[in-house]
Amino acid sequence: MAEADRKLANGADRIDFKTDPSRYRHWKLAVEGDTATLTMDVDENAPLFEGYQLKLNSYDLGVDIELADALERLRFEQPQVRVVLLRSGKPRVFCAGANIRMLAAASHAHKVNFCKFTNETRNAIEDASEFSGQRMICVVTGSCAGGGYELALAADHIILVDDGSSTVSLPELPLLAVLPGTGGLTRVTDKRKVRRDHADVFCTTEEGVKGRRAVDWKLVDEVVPNSKLDETVAARAQEFAAKSDRPADAKGIVLAPLQVKATPQGRETALVSVEIAGRIATITLRGPQSAPPADMNMMLAQGSAFWPLALARELDDAILDIRLNEFEVAAIVFKSEGDAAAVLAHDELLEENKAHWLAREIRLKWKRVLKRVDLTSRTLVTLVEPGSCFAGTLAELVLAADRSYMLVGQRDGDNRPAAAMALHAVNFGPYLMSNGLTRLATRFLDDDKAVAAAKKAIGEVIDAGAAGELGLVTFALDDIDWEDEIRVFLEERASFSADSLTGLEANLRFGGPETMETKIFARLTAWQNWIFQRPNAVGEEGALRRYGTGQKAVFDTKRV
Amino acid sequence: MAEADRKLANGADRIDFKTDPSRYRHWKLAVEGDTATLTMDVDENAPLFEGYQLKLNSYDLGVDIELADALERLRFEQPQVRVVLLRSGKPRVFCAGANIRMLAAASHAHKVNFCKFTNETRNAIEDASEFSGQRMICVVTGSCAGGGYELALAADHIILVDDGSSTVSLPELPLLAVLPGTGGLTRVTDKRKVRRDHADVFCTTEEGVKGRRAVDWKLVDEVVPNSKLDETVAARAQEFAAKSDRPADAKGIVLAPLQVKATPQGRETALVSVEIAGRIATITLRGPQSAPPADMNMMLAQGSAFWPLALARELDDAILDIRLNEFEVAAIVFKSEGDAAAVLAHDELLEENKAHWLAREIRLKWKRVLKRVDLTSRTLVTLVEPGSCFAGTLAELVLAADRSYMLVGQRDGDNRPAAAMALHAVNFGPYLMSNGLTRLATRFLDDDKAVAAAKKAIGEVIDAGAAGELGLVTFALDDIDWEDEIRVFLEERASFSADSLTGLEANLRFGGPETMETKIFARLTAWQNWIFQRPNAVGEEGALRRYGTGQKAVFDTKRV
Repeated sequence: MAEADRKLANGADRIDFKTDPSRYRHWKLAVEGDTATLTMDVDENAPLFEGYQLKLNSYDLGVDIELADALERLRFEQPQVRVVLLRSGKPRVFCAGANIRMLAAASHAHKVNFCKFTNETRNAIEDASEFSGQRMICVVTGSCAGGGYELALAADHIILVDDGSSTVSLPELPLLAVLPGTGGLTRVTDKRKVRRDHADVFCTTEEGVKGRRAVDWKLVDEVVPNSKLDETVAARAQEFAAKSDRPADAKGIVLAPLQVKATPQGRETALVSVEIAGRIATITLRGPQSAPPADMNMMLAQGSAFWPLALARELDDAILDIRLNEFEVAAIVFKSEGDAAAVLAHDELLEENKAHWLAREIRLKWKRVLKRVDLTSRTLVTLVEPGSCFAGTLAELVLAADRSYMLVGQRDGDNRPAAAMALHAVNFGPYLMSNGLTRLATRFLDDDKAVAAAKKAIGEVIDAGAAGELGLVTFALDDIDWEDEIRVFLEERASFSADSLTGLEANLRFGGPETMETKIFARLTAWQNWIFQRPNAVGEEGALRRYGTGQKAVFDTKRV
Repeated sequence: MAEADRKLANGADRIDFKTDPSRYRHWKLAVEGDTATLTMDVDENAPLFEGYQLKLNSYDLGVDIELADALERLRFEQPQVRVVLLRSGKPRVFCAGANIRMLAAASHAHKVNFCKFTNETRNAIEDASEFSGQRMICVVTGSCAGGGYELALAADHIILVDDGSSTVSLPELPLLAVLPGTGGLTRVTDKRKVRRDHADVFCTTEEGVKGRRAVDWKLVDEVVPNSKLDETVAARAQEFAAKSDRPADAKGIVLAPLQVKATPQGRETALVSVEIAGRIATITLRGPQSAPPADMNMMLAQGSAFWPLALARELDDAILDIRLNEFEVAAIVFKSEGDAAAVLAHDELLEENKAHWLAREIRLKWKRVLKRVDLTSRTLVTLVEPGSCFAGTLAELVLAADRSYMLVGQRDGDNRPAAAMALHAVNFGPYLMSNGLTRLATRFLDDDKAVAAAKKAIGEVIDAGAAGELGLVTFALDDIDWEDEIRVFLEERASFSADSLTGLEANLRFGGPETMETKIFARLTAWQNWIFQRPNAVGEEGALRRYGTGQKAVFDTKRV
């Protein structure tokens, strides 16, 4: 159940992350040649939860789920699209940001996970631009406030119409006593390089900035009079399209709907089972049932049924479902079943064809799903047992875990061979974490020798002893200790304070460099979460609660 | 008044940061040749606040104020000291970390600022090692837990005695439901490069790690049996001393006690006035009264009265006083009075002699004081007016401000010349912020041209017009607008939520790269502050409150 105290407007008992354009209520997606237009036109009468309207193109998680879906489809279904124009379908407003009544009524856990998802969606926009040649141009007509401007900030280029009234603003602080926390502060300073004192003025000015000053302060890339808007947008689209390497005449694949079956303990999709027992969710991933397709044409023919893509999508949906619907889950335990050689054969096909647009998209999708795992604030545990297939791409789940356990030798009464892992080139490059390093490089921070030793083991069958020596798993255990040790560990974990685990894991998972992305999820988000707890924002007299009531917020004036 | 609801044990009404070895209750400082021994021997009956005892070498802010003082004195008063041995004066315990009863009873604002100060002190240990050739070796005998181990982590080398009972541990999470927030998590992953899964085990294990495993997991540098402890410590001290560039036969200067006079509106020291009106504190810095000493010998003779050093110490104390005693202050306004040429002459003397130990120390002291300003969570405003001397080192206070205002031309009825700023080489190198960049480089992130233009202006008299063009100030205002504009701005600032300002400023001030230091103050601290607000730690049934009561903490099990 998503949240005991709130009702989903559609009468369902869980938030559903699956959608498709035929079901969109808030976005219109139109494609013409190499240019797509994504129009935000929020249906104010279709909120996710009961109790508020989505006025002025404001958004809630439901709106963002559609956006995330549209962005995914553009990459897989429209390989020829090189430029995405982000526009508003409303006359005088671009987007008013996250809906305030929704925020005021949401639980802390929902707010935090809502922000995490919207952040991931905006990061995906930048990922499409940087790695997939799909650039975004944001055309701001009308008021573009708060989360609306934060969405614009994710684009490569922001055009602001110069009509005397269209503005960009981050009014969160003066209006609501919270931060522009969906990447806003970080992108203002680190992406757009707005001078810190200008940023200070901008972020404390309710009414925002328009016209020339918006360009001078680097808040937008250009201002254009209404009369020249269409030609400017067309010209910029052409310029950005010219620099893209996306294939001109490729045909996309269709992302078929995921079929999810509820089970008494959890859920099943074709390749992923989720079982929840007590406060532990076990996610079991199934390896490929057959050899990979012989060539790229056959891979294209498999479409979204192609094993790596199908698994990535199912895992992603399972993680999101736990994040937003199962707040009591303390730990996620990853298991796998299948043939490691078949996993590696799929990795190899993608590696050999990594320049092909679809192979590239699939690996980028895995990169994003694995980052979503890294950023999930539940304890992550991976169990490497006989019959498992933690090889290549799936070995990343061993490295993503807070702890991993590997069984030494065979299991009593089980004639399957001893557990083994395997590494592949894919573990040494494409799946960068948000800190810009591979999981192995993060694990062995500045220890090039350890990374080299792991690289040398590519192609080897890595048993528990070797995995321990290479430092790939935390503990290698005998059958006799296995069950007790893991049970005690999981019980202990569930007994700790949930909040302190969130903080611990957020720190230990991201050693090494910080990037704009890690800054957003750490410096910015952690401060925002702190503010989301403080009475000045969320108390009875706080700004979030008092907004729109006509009563002024009352603040504790102590500076902490 | 420090905190309305708590009483200082010494009966005073403000926390005092000034001390000297003759008044230490908790530390012993002994110097022999090039080696100092700093012995922690906390007097359990001398807590800072009433209501708890400092058992088992646990610490509160009072203990840390003495440590910070000892570290400062070692640098200025003992230039020949190359190695500092950090030891415990208690038989079976090294240090039990921050005192839990103190934490449980402290206000949120005190806790947060206590942690900030202790973090700054540990960073100063690393600063002494990296920039000043004073290395620290920590000799762990007995139990070294929590903040005790975090103190050890600041050292260059950790020796753990192998006696079967001496351990290092970070039991904050399992015991208290908070984080090892005084740099612990960050130094474990980023300084000592402990593998993230080992770190996970270590940080969730109450009893800690001893012997061989502590070395294998990189938690300490060596374990040594009791019988070989003395010779090992002596050998390491010799090794580290051999690599230091500190002068063998220099004589130190004495850091004379600061004379602080309370005034009806604030306080006065020789060079710094603090005036508090409403929620605004105005700090006025006075420039040098005379030309700098002719040479280094005369500078040594001036000792701690030498203007740059005297001003740095007074400013530091003023900032700390506001941070811990004046929680209602929303903004600090910096002003200055004096002769810019005289400021620059002092900067030039230090620049010419930057290889001299004392000149180096004074510049490093300024670096630390300016970082303290950056990290002060109050709005920082600098006003550049006629008669001010924001030149060279003092110009850093314009660049450190969230906003700065400069008066254009002369003031009506004031015949002093128009306000001017001046830059010096000192603005382009030695005063790195904790992000590893100069304030100018942070201001003009990736805009080398703007930095170069500022560099070209070295030696010029920069009036308001030029300062605006160079981007050194936020607003240049005429006399006619000055008073109203600034008054309205300060009133508005004081009307905003204090917490959201803290978050905003913490984000906007630190654009660009993150370092271990910024990670500690952002990722780690922000999460800790969040946890310090959560009922699982600080609620009636939370772990911090229930610790030692015999009652188990009760947790909200929701993962956020």
